[in-house]
Amino acid sequence: MSIREKLRVSPGQKIHLDDIDPDQVDGIDDKSDAKRDLREEVEKISDLQEALYAESKQALLVVFQALDAGGKDGTIRSVFSGINPQGCHVTSFKAPSTLERSHDFLWRIHQAVPRHGTIGVFNRSQYEDVLIVRVDNLAPKSVWKPRYEQINHFEALLTSARTRVIKFYLHISRDEQKERFQERLDMPEKHWKFSAEDLEKRKQWNDYRKAFEDVLERCSTEEAPWYIIPANRNWVRNLAVARVLRETLEEMDPQYPTLENFDPSSYVID
Amino acid sequence: MSIREKLRVSPGQKIHLDDIDPDQVDGIDDKSDAKRDLREEVEKISDLQEALYAESKQALLVVFQALDAGGKDGTIRSVFSGINPQGCHVTSFKAPSTLERSHDFLWRIHQAVPRHGTIGVFNRSQYEDVLIVRVDNLAPKSVWKPRYEQINHFEALLTSARTRVIKFYLHISRDEQKERFQERLDMPEKHWKFSAEDLEKRKQWNDYRKAFEDVLERCSTEEAPWYIIPANRNWVRNLAVARVLRETLEEMDPQYPTLENFDPSSYVID
Repeated sequence: MSIREKLRVSPGQKIHLDDIDPDQVDGIDDKSDAKRDLREEVEKISDLQEALYAESKQALLVVFQALDAGGKDGTIRSVFSGINPQGCHVTSFKAPSTLERSHDFLWRIHQAVPRHGTIGVFNRSQYEDVLIVRVDNLAPKSVWKPRYEQINHFEALLTSARTRVIKFYLHISRDEQKERFQERLDMPEKHWKFSAEDLEKRKQWNDYRKAFEDVLERCSTEEAPWYIIPANRNWVRNLAVARVLRETLEEMDPQYPTLENFDPSSYVID
Repeated sequence: MSIREKLRVSPGQKIHLDDIDPDQVDGIDDKSDAKRDLREEVEKISDLQEALYAESKQALLVVFQALDAGGKDGTIRSVFSGINPQGCHVTSFKAPSTLERSHDFLWRIHQAVPRHGTIGVFNRSQYEDVLIVRVDNLAPKSVWKPRYEQINHFEALLTSARTRVIKFYLHISRDEQKERFQERLDMPEKHWKFSAEDLEKRKQWNDYRKAFEDVLERCSTEEAPWYIIPANRNWVRNLAVARVLRETLEEMDPQYPTLENFDPSSYVID
């Protein structure tokens, strides 16, 4: 079974996050092996991305969502450093601006999707509009409820235009979150990452869990699947994400363009 | 003398590109040493960029210009792969769209400048509007002539808002360009990079040289300097660019934020 089959959420599958082990992935057992394997995966991803860029006929959009301290920043740094940034754009979505709030929720998202030839990475995404918005009652249910389907339609539109969409939920335990918050408090160089607001959100742990389960159940499609990544251990998480990415890019099979009727000997450079 | 002093164009300095050796930089003599040194520089740049991102109070804009086959793409790949793409955005400027042409020439440029905490890389830039536009007569002299000063004012605006601007001209010889074009013709996997248009532009070599000399003479300021990078040899070019970058970031001296009146012990995570 490929790692994608192991970690992918099937369309309509019921999800109980408490039943999913956040510690392990079959086949990723040894830390130093995993670090070496990650380097190899990143090199392969880098090569595939160069071909994608040369080809310029399809794109890949990679979405990361997680609870606070789930490791979105760390995953992006570990997996995407080593990729040519000319063909890889990361967009971090924060609370929407006044201008963005005066549009539909997908307006700012649409502007950030990758163009053909490139990989787009979303650190948070359209899914915040059915996560924090739902948990904190930032919009009534009549507004956020239709969004699951609106998101599915939006992602189908991207897919139809040869932008492949894959989505990673980084799955950590409540204890692991506590440890990571405590580390931010204990280490002066990590203080800047700490926010009292994070502790408030931690109190809503169960509400967020439920909101994530609904996202995973309703928005994992054949074309734009969700992957649940066990993320308590960074080296397991990084390698799992890199493998899914590499396999996806291999399936997309980007080709260096060949020019039709191109006769190099007809050109003389003086 | 630091590498920045060696390679920087002083404000108002007369430039004769034919008198500048495109092969060497003092102190970069050995290819395998240079490759090892480049890896070290990239690691330092990566660390400085993490601090810049955490600090989020200043930005760095890096502009690359060169004649065709001058090595813009290769430099960006070699120097910026290894940097966290979450804090580094590359923008490649092509021929302006209909919408872009219905605005002033800096409109699309302004939208792409890096926000605080990030590094922005321009592959081509506002300078095309006094290069190809001038050489190919795409606008009358009355339009492109004032642009040198307009660009200086624009870059001064960025500087005043704590966006440091540095600009690299990758300097290759006419013979080296010929070799690189020939390689694109000879190697099937490089055919896609070849364009018959490039040969037309090669015929305008002297016009482009003159246009570049004017850019270097008129738009290298104390705050936003041009650097002339000998670029016939990739390993010399990559290390020279990386060193200038690292020295610039060191001078910007980004600091991890410290929180005032922050008492970690006042927080209890349950």
